[in-house]
Amino acid sequence: MGDTSCIFCKIARGELGTPFVYQDADVVAFRDLHPQAPTHVLVIPRRHVDSLAASTAADDVLLGKVLAGVRATADQLGLVQSGYRTVLNTGAGAGQSVLHLHAHLLAGRTLAWPPG
Amino acid sequence: MGDTSCIFCKIARGELGTPFVYQDADVVAFRDLHPQAPTHVLVIPRRHVDSLAASTAADDVLLGKVLAGVRATADQLGLVQSGYRTVLNTGAGAGQSVLHLHAHLLAGRTLAWPPG
Repeated sequence: MGDTSCIFCKIARGELGTPFVYQDADVVAFRDLHPQAPTHVLVIPRRHVDSLAASTAADDVLLGKVLAGVRATADQLGLVQSGYRTVLNTGAGAGQSVLHLHAHLLAGRTLAWPPG
Repeated sequence: MGDTSCIFCKIARGELGTPFVYQDADVVAFRDLHPQAPTHVLVIPRRHVDSLAASTAADDVLLGKVLAGVRATADQLGLVQSGYRTVLNTGAGAGQSVLHLHAHLLAGRTLAWPPG
């Protein structure tokens, strides 16, 4: 059940006391420590997967649960009317800083294009 | 199967002759008309879903297939080593310009933070 040294696995298990803004059987959602928007939440699977690139077909249902978790978090935070952006960085070269798959949910300000 | 007026449904059905850089039973992938990076591909489900916010639990498997399609497209284009960013805009306020769910896959340059 996850790498014992993985910080996001520890968060998902509740070992760090991180407040969850949303959680269900498959995912937990919590505020990014370095928010880039008025709302900036990370949605992560409870089960450890390194990244989208490292996932396999056996993880595809879980990948859907991650996006469903983003949707549920956005619903709960009242972001649907204003809109929101979901970002997954895959690989250090794209900005992935924690090797446990996570979706960034950003909202609450104008989101420019390109996305970084 | 899908709104007859939806441009992405037409693309997915092959009606516009759009070259696919990847396709499988669930998704098609094609180049963005206004690329924001050396590689900028859109991955869309063949079945019409307006947006992540408009999706329901019945769509969650398909949501996973969209991310799996991003992974497969990135594999095929050789983007894993350099890394890649996946972006879903939900709602006009976040930059969603076509009301057919789509994931942007960007790679081939430094991707800054914040993501827009």
